[in-house]
Amino acid sequence: MNLLTPPEGRSIDVVCVGMAIVDVLAHAEDTFLESHAMIKGSMDLIDTERALSVYAAMPPAIEVSGGSAANTAAGLASFGGAVAFVGKVAEDELGAVFAHDIRAAGVAFDIEPLSGSEAAAGTARCLILVTPDAQRTMNTYLGVAASLRPIDIDGALIASAKVLYIEGYLWDDPGAKDVIRTAIAAAREAGTRVSFTLSDGFCVDRHRAEFLELIAGDVDILFANESEICSLYETAEFEEAVSKVVGHVAVACLTRSEHGSIILTADGDRIEIPAVPATLVDTTGAGDLYAAGFLSGWTTGQSLAESGRMGSLAAGEVISHLGARPQVSLNELWKDHR
Amino acid sequence: MNLLTPPEGRSIDVVCVGMAIVDVLAHAEDTFLESHAMIKGSMDLIDTERALSVYAAMPPAIEVSGGSAANTAAGLASFGGAVAFVGKVAEDELGAVFAHDIRAAGVAFDIEPLSGSEAAAGTARCLILVTPDAQRTMNTYLGVAASLRPIDIDGALIASAKVLYIEGYLWDDPGAKDVIRTAIAAAREAGTRVSFTLSDGFCVDRHRAEFLELIAGDVDILFANESEICSLYETAEFEEAVSKVVGHVAVACLTRSEHGSIILTADGDRIEIPAVPATLVDTTGAGDLYAAGFLSGWTTGQSLAESGRMGSLAAGEVISHLGARPQVSLNELWKDHR
Repeated sequence: MNLLTPPEGRSIDVVCVGMAIVDVLAHAEDTFLESHAMIKGSMDLIDTERALSVYAAMPPAIEVSGGSAANTAAGLASFGGAVAFVGKVAEDELGAVFAHDIRAAGVAFDIEPLSGSEAAAGTARCLILVTPDAQRTMNTYLGVAASLRPIDIDGALIASAKVLYIEGYLWDDPGAKDVIRTAIAAAREAGTRVSFTLSDGFCVDRHRAEFLELIAGDVDILFANESEICSLYETAEFEEAVSKVVGHVAVACLTRSEHGSIILTADGDRIEIPAVPATLVDTTGAGDLYAAGFLSGWTTGQSLAESGRMGSLAAGEVISHLGARPQVSLNELWKDHR
Repeated sequence: MNLLTPPEGRSIDVVCVGMAIVDVLAHAEDTFLESHAMIKGSMDLIDTERALSVYAAMPPAIEVSGGSAANTAAGLASFGGAVAFVGKVAEDELGAVFAHDIRAAGVAFDIEPLSGSEAAAGTARCLILVTPDAQRTMNTYLGVAASLRPIDIDGALIASAKVLYIEGYLWDDPGAKDVIRTAIAAAREAGTRVSFTLSDGFCVDRHRAEFLELIAGDVDILFANESEICSLYETAEFEEAVSKVVGHVAVACLTRSEHGSIILTADGDRIEIPAVPATLVDTTGAGDLYAAGFLSGWTTGQSLAESGRMGSLAAGEVISHLGARPQVSLNELWKDHR
């Protein structure tokens, strides 16, 4: 077997790059989604006007820091890992909330907030409706999160990490493509492994060609759920998507909600990981935390199977409450679980 | 028996007046309280500097609209009541969160946010540490919440209500005393009943003489927990406090956490109400929601005992999750419970 292993001599485990977002979560009935033309389970990008109208119609909400890669960073830190997050907030109250929460979680976050006229769009927020089936439907107002630029990428930071983790959502900002190229180039040069999440089926639809190219050339560890990997290969058959992804990346982690996950290696190994039973409250962040658990294991030398089980545990914790960040120490939870 | 009854011919049930606050809630160990010189279970007023230092030290948090009387208003609306809230926010992001949440809860909230230089102090926030015993310790930065003025009091609104509900915390703003006098005078003139909560033991310490005078002359329905009523009468003996409060108000509702509550009438009746069993997660808002339940019953012609049971139910719901606003319809919960 020729399994990819983490590089030696790194001071931090993972650098996560993504959209810095504060989630605004509320419970809602399915009829709310219908009357506002929302597609259940998806992430929709919205403009200021729609953000105002959806928010005005939403039930009372709670605010919790979110952002896909940022959630993964918080999860990695909760397992005890050394993690940095790269993303953009504005110098406003939600920006202060985001910065506080990710630092308090133990994640290094050194990107200066935008201020003055550059900050006019405000810190990103994601209006999330959680239906009685615990499914989350997301409406993202990107604000300044889409203002990440290559100058924000610190090559030395990426070179000091075992893994660079990038979220697919970044492609929704046309200007962020150079950021991704810059980050990947820094990783390639330093031997830092590149990990990528497909993020969302509709996001895959919007950027399929680029994602396929990226996966074919630059990704070592891929994360995707069933609908995302099927969208990538434009098939309704999960096993067909499985057969297509093998060989393109060193490791592919495909999550399947309550059916657990499948870890595929370039050599054709297939490891099935069960889900960890949980009282389902809100699925927001399930995929993000699975990635956090898997990378926590993988960067510390655990087997793929053990890493996958850590992913399942972290996903199980985060779906048992409102919000996409862990509410307990995942390190302690894992000790008790194992 | 000469029980106080709600006045006839009113278009709304309760007008709640209080501090408009967004809660910032985090789990913390007891050692956190000790190292920051916090007194467990109390509400401490903090300035900007302390707010920044406590927030910087706090674990990752969630933001949920709060404020004592505002929580009561949200609870009353959740039972199906017609409610208005009077309090002050700034034209900032937390102010928008507060205004959205209380309106989305079904409460009328028509006070204009402060803007420009008047809004510099920002919307109030309460930094709340929830310890493993589920007890909440509050650090309140009042910001513009302490800028309520008599001009904000709409006499016609109060005259249209069955009950005016005032929180003791208001006394912590020297300028708010005229607000309270104005509101009570409007209530007295219109025959609107006056209801008052002692809010917090230390708050009672700060304003004992004024609270005693208010209770002796102007309060029809009093809410207090054990430590507050004991603080009011400067005794360690609950029964001594009970004997002292009888006769001063038409109805006194004294809450005792897991031991339920005691409802006392001016005629000397004493009704004991059991607590509703709940999985204790966070006690924030327990007293506020008890008041909401009691007033929901009382304003709709329920008996004192039935009103008290509605209070217990609402308190039981709010302590079973993080945050001080109900997460389900209390009206539906009450139907199922009864």
